[in-house]
Amino acid sequence: MRLGILGGGQLAWMLAQAAEPLGVSVAVLDPSPDCAAGRIADHVVAAYDDPAGLDEVSKGADVVTYEFENVPAAAVTRLAEHGVPVLPFPASLTITQDRAREKELMAGLGIKVAPYALIDSADDAAAALDKVGAPGILKTRRLGYDGKGQVRVKTADDLPAAIAELGGTDLIYEGLITFTRELSVVVARGTDGSLAVYPPVENEHRDGILACTLAPAPELAPDQAELAQAVGVSVAEALDHIGVLCVELFDTPDGIVANEIAPRVHNSGHWSIEGAVTSQFENHVRGVLGLPLGDPSARGVAAMVNIVGTEPELAALLAIPGASVHTYGKSPRTGRKLAHVTLVADSVDALAVPLARARVLCDAAWDA
Amino acid sequence: MRLGILGGGQLAWMLAQAAEPLGVSVAVLDPSPDCAAGRIADHVVAAYDDPAGLDEVSKGADVVTYEFENVPAAAVTRLAEHGVPVLPFPASLTITQDRAREKELMAGLGIKVAPYALIDSADDAAAALDKVGAPGILKTRRLGYDGKGQVRVKTADDLPAAIAELGGTDLIYEGLITFTRELSVVVARGTDGSLAVYPPVENEHRDGILACTLAPAPELAPDQAELAQAVGVSVAEALDHIGVLCVELFDTPDGIVANEIAPRVHNSGHWSIEGAVTSQFENHVRGVLGLPLGDPSARGVAAMVNIVGTEPELAALLAIPGASVHTYGKSPRTGRKLAHVTLVADSVDALAVPLARARVLCDAAWDA
Repeated sequence: MRLGILGGGQLAWMLAQAAEPLGVSVAVLDPSPDCAAGRIADHVVAAYDDPAGLDEVSKGADVVTYEFENVPAAAVTRLAEHGVPVLPFPASLTITQDRAREKELMAGLGIKVAPYALIDSADDAAAALDKVGAPGILKTRRLGYDGKGQVRVKTADDLPAAIAELGGTDLIYEGLITFTRELSVVVARGTDGSLAVYPPVENEHRDGILACTLAPAPELAPDQAELAQAVGVSVAEALDHIGVLCVELFDTPDGIVANEIAPRVHNSGHWSIEGAVTSQFENHVRGVLGLPLGDPSARGVAAMVNIVGTEPELAALLAIPGASVHTYGKSPRTGRKLAHVTLVADSVDALAVPLARARVLCDAAWDA
Repeated sequence: MRLGILGGGQLAWMLAQAAEPLGVSVAVLDPSPDCAAGRIADHVVAAYDDPAGLDEVSKGADVVTYEFENVPAAAVTRLAEHGVPVLPFPASLTITQDRAREKELMAGLGIKVAPYALIDSADDAAAALDKVGAPGILKTRRLGYDGKGQVRVKTADDLPAAIAELGGTDLIYEGLITFTRELSVVVARGTDGSLAVYPPVENEHRDGILACTLAPAPELAPDQAELAQAVGVSVAEALDHIGVLCVELFDTPDGIVANEIAPRVHNSGHWSIEGAVTSQFENHVRGVLGLPLGDPSARGVAAMVNIVGTEPELAALLAIPGASVHTYGKSPRTGRKLAHVTLVADSVDALAVPLARARVLCDAAWDA
């Protein structure tokens, strides 16, 4: 079997690593000549909307998938012309590319979301403040990630300036949620509708970037864990999503509130390579290719620590008991995800010291 | 960092898979244009004793290692001329390439081995029978593997014909050991002498080929498990072995008896990819590159089933709970190892049904 992937970054790199043992060959389309996945997969160096590049990455492929949600619609259309299935289906992209449609979908499913109002001009400010209040957060409806395209609105008076700053139209104004922690849930769904639902995890962010994931989320009440998983399942089913998606959640005193959907393998699922029976990457490959899904159960407990900006010394990381290092081969840059380290242990207590050691090294590298 | 590997078969393929996340690039030397490791590593297509090929695979490498024990001595000499370290050191090769020296090493370390006698001509038959008795097994001292280069000797009268069959010289005649099962132990040793010792495993052979490994070996008495691990450690230390080696053992009513040494990653260690915190492949990479070794502890229980001759349908294997499939991309051939499947579970009881399902599929493929 053969899989085409739009994007050749670290997510495609880990997808290709999961595909290789299954005998699935991989081609990636990525304009960067030294993208991570290019080291182990066939690499088509072209823009994502380049017709020849799209033809090449889909040549001989059973399915084409993607590692990022901002896939140009023209790319999907081009691939569809060849009769090569693009999975997840375009609906997963078009809805999640738009924060407004995403929120509407989830609200329509009865999933609790933050109060929100759409803003298409400065004139919408008053009505939005009426509905949502302040403080809040103003976001572009499209093309935002890792904290980009977002402005905090402290008081009602700040909203007009924020609207102007973000371009004045196609915005969404959301009420701030008071949460005790951030959670996420990863779901894999097969072409036959079968499901593999990972245990919800706890995520800690820094500078708007994921810093650390604890899997499963410690001390999450069973009913809240079930609710988080049900949110993931209902979103996946509503989108008829094939492959992996992730729903980011807030844990609040009033229960789980959904934040946003990523229609792809997700950084908060990296722990699953070592920490679950079958990883999110392998289950995405299995799912889009119509193969049976693997078991998403956690094996003991795991923590994933992102390495951002610069990398700690490899030997220092590997000296930590239970550590597995994944380094993406990217050059250092402030705020850039370069690698991650996963720690596994039999219990939360046994994880504490290795995790603390990893955090010290990775935090220092982040600050360097 | 960069690692050269002599050989590009499935062992090199799994070494390259373990190297990739660590940021270690790999070049393999293998005369076969479609060797497994060539799919994910730089591939030098040349004979193992080809000077230009050896130069190329070692170019820019920090270390050169090997995936098979019959590395030509000339190759090691050539590499040494370049000043590229070859690890494990040549002693691990020269001793384990020769069943007589291997036996002598182990006997000298106080490790229990089968009675044996060296045979260099037909004239040695009588003395060998005096020492070892019959039945026994006659083997070539060098270049035997997977049951090749071996003849069973049922009665004393059969020995002369067996000697003639195997070439008359450079043979070793061993007494048959009455064993209840076969075991093995895998040990990784770092450049600093640090050790990572995997739990002993139980191996079942078929047609002289490994069929199934259970890890850890079920119901192995703690003192025998410790003895097996001590055997592995003393062999590794006596050879000043760097990287992974495996000692194959017999479990007998009188305790552990050592059979032979493989100075490399070993089929009976494949379970460790999913079944141990750090796999034998990653620990070999770490070991030869001077990086800290990872934890060899088992995570739950695992079974590895070899796929030999032909391959079962991928989807059927992946439908088994807890199954991970590794398919080497080789064409079918009687007696050829094509793939393996590893099952993981929390307990031996929980492993029973998935293992039985995998055995049914893999046995049928073996017989096909």
